[in-house]
Amino acid sequence: MALIGATRKVGVDRQALTDGDKAARDLFTAWCESAGCSVTVDAMGNMFARRPGRDEDLPPVAMASHLDSQPTGGKYDGAYGVLAGLEAVRTLNDAGLQTTAPLEVINWTNEEGARFAPAMISSGVFAGVFEPEYAWARTDPDGVTLGEELDRIGYRGDLAVGDHPLGACFELHIEQGPILEQAQTPVGIVTGVQGMRWYDVVMTGQESHAGPTPMEMRRDALAGSVALLSRIYSLATDRAPAGRATIGELHTGKGSRNTVPGSVSFTVDMRHPVEAELEAMDAGLRAAAAEVATAGRLGHSIDNIWSAAPVAFDEGCIEAVRQAASTVGCTALEVVSGAGHDAVYVSRVAPTSMIFVPCRDGISHNEAEHAEPEDLEAGANVLLHAAMARAGVAG
Amino acid sequence: MALIGATRKVGVDRQALTDGDKAARDLFTAWCESAGCSVTVDAMGNMFARRPGRDEDLPPVAMASHLDSQPTGGKYDGAYGVLAGLEAVRTLNDAGLQTTAPLEVINWTNEEGARFAPAMISSGVFAGVFEPEYAWARTDPDGVTLGEELDRIGYRGDLAVGDHPLGACFELHIEQGPILEQAQTPVGIVTGVQGMRWYDVVMTGQESHAGPTPMEMRRDALAGSVALLSRIYSLATDRAPAGRATIGELHTGKGSRNTVPGSVSFTVDMRHPVEAELEAMDAGLRAAAAEVATAGRLGHSIDNIWSAAPVAFDEGCIEAVRQAASTVGCTALEVVSGAGHDAVYVSRVAPTSMIFVPCRDGISHNEAEHAEPEDLEAGANVLLHAAMARAGVAG
Repeated sequence: MALIGATRKVGVDRQALTDGDKAARDLFTAWCESAGCSVTVDAMGNMFARRPGRDEDLPPVAMASHLDSQPTGGKYDGAYGVLAGLEAVRTLNDAGLQTTAPLEVINWTNEEGARFAPAMISSGVFAGVFEPEYAWARTDPDGVTLGEELDRIGYRGDLAVGDHPLGACFELHIEQGPILEQAQTPVGIVTGVQGMRWYDVVMTGQESHAGPTPMEMRRDALAGSVALLSRIYSLATDRAPAGRATIGELHTGKGSRNTVPGSVSFTVDMRHPVEAELEAMDAGLRAAAAEVATAGRLGHSIDNIWSAAPVAFDEGCIEAVRQAASTVGCTALEVVSGAGHDAVYVSRVAPTSMIFVPCRDGISHNEAEHAEPEDLEAGANVLLHAAMARAGVAG
Repeated sequence: MALIGATRKVGVDRQALTDGDKAARDLFTAWCESAGCSVTVDAMGNMFARRPGRDEDLPPVAMASHLDSQPTGGKYDGAYGVLAGLEAVRTLNDAGLQTTAPLEVINWTNEEGARFAPAMISSGVFAGVFEPEYAWARTDPDGVTLGEELDRIGYRGDLAVGDHPLGACFELHIEQGPILEQAQTPVGIVTGVQGMRWYDVVMTGQESHAGPTPMEMRRDALAGSVALLSRIYSLATDRAPAGRATIGELHTGKGSRNTVPGSVSFTVDMRHPVEAELEAMDAGLRAAAAEVATAGRLGHSIDNIWSAAPVAFDEGCIEAVRQAASTVGCTALEVVSGAGHDAVYVSRVAPTSMIFVPCRDGISHNEAEHAEPEDLEAGANVLLHAAMARAGVAG
């Protein structure tokens, strides 16, 4: 699969609904059909490879992720979870086991959002978060719509999107962070996804000459911002290890090296898995900004441009993953995802949880993305056993 | 004088060697000649309006500043010091007093450097800091040279530049800072000029995802910069009121709001009137950067792009100003200039000091620049008495 869209730096460029994505879908279909699955496609291009269960009236247990990639992405992000689902099917075939409920391996369309924003749009339509018409009308940088590209590659299917109950859904994925690698643990039992809040902050002072103006007479927008940033970082470190605070972009306004800065603009990204803590971090940010502004005789504005509530995954699914890790005999750590995944939207309409495996240096969305084969094997075995447990194995 | 180059916002645009500067020079010449002075011009356009002394073999005592302005400058910056010198001459005329040494009112060419960089170029040539050929070859934004413009407005004089000993030189100027206004003191006895050092600093870390990366596992170039900036500000505040530290420009590298910053670049401007303290601030900056980099697992570079040593003005001239303030009966504060002036260069070749008067809100290089008439009068009287004391008054 990694040969489709392979880059010279051994990564993958297989953006959603490109010729590369079509080739990946065709190969996936061929592999699934040769493993005895029937493949159906919904009107968002989401693909469902079904292995029949003993009781076909039961809703299927899904193993789901995505085959699309970032423009300079890695081999594992997404594809690992889909292909591990296929491998689970093959393993059951080899063992001659049939599950009570059907199994499905799902490929969600355009998880990355790199070509068509927003990300996770098709699992979002599946979960009723977006209307299909909205999703089809999204355009890539060349102005081509998502719907046009679905038609072009022949993957606008007949199934209505979301009219597809799932008994459970497991998403196996590389961690995209450093926690499991640091803990030397092959499997993460993902209990939920951090909530996050994004802000734009502006501090305003008074420009003055760097020479004649004594420190105590200044209204220095950057000195005030430095004091505020220290307190923003503390909002996260005081909530270690779960809290996160990132100032990704900070710029002084139009000025010069010998002028006290009159304005500073910066972004704030705060995350926590518990909504009440996020709320407390929001209050802490606002209180700190007000105090710093008063102390420095500065103006300030805080614009909360976007928020996402934390997600708590299904307890039954989490327990199935916990038991599966025990059955497989690998150590596992309970973790919270810091990044969004299709499982976030799916969790709104079906019992859902995730399984993580380590990736080297926590690096992802990068051609250097790497995961160790033994960790990938452990994760795939946990996925298999969790799905078997939820689907029931009659033997 | 302020009507020449007057702007709609009641400021002045009279940049060096423009038609406005020529008109100002012509008016200054006419006023000086009607006050009994002879006006000579050197090859940099520096103007010397001479009032004879009783002993014409003695070098003259100068009252010197500049008539050129910033593009959106104020009425007082420079012109005040020149015209106060002329007023001193007129006052001595009215009182029928002759000084032992001659007096000169000097107008230095292109102090601002706004049209031709660098600033203070003609007092610099006078003091032997720059070669005349270098100065004449400086170009304005349209590519016109300083020498061509001297010829065009008829102010490339016959005198060799710098072949002109001065017995003393006083420069009266608005403070361009807030100290005297805050202290409600009309006169500043300027004992010297701050030394300064300019740096470009880069901190480098590792980009990582804002969500999955715990705070303690980050190599956050901005968090490290924040810690370093706090310590840089302390290098100045620990040396209050003389120390200054300004980070005029700071920018995170190419990144995004949900990525831990991989690099941060910023400027540092540190000032102090004592070279040994500047040296200690330099060492403190380097030590703090090394410690912060080690603690945050960051790379760093510090480039000292420019330095200027502190200037200590002549003790005799400072004492003359101190005595003059006492004679005039006004309160006065000993201060250090935070900005450069022609007096810095002149002090290399003649006993020199400066006198400051307050300007409103410390604002200068701005059309809103303002000084109170009573402060301007006090400053002019101090200039007169300091020059009289140095030149000697025979009665």
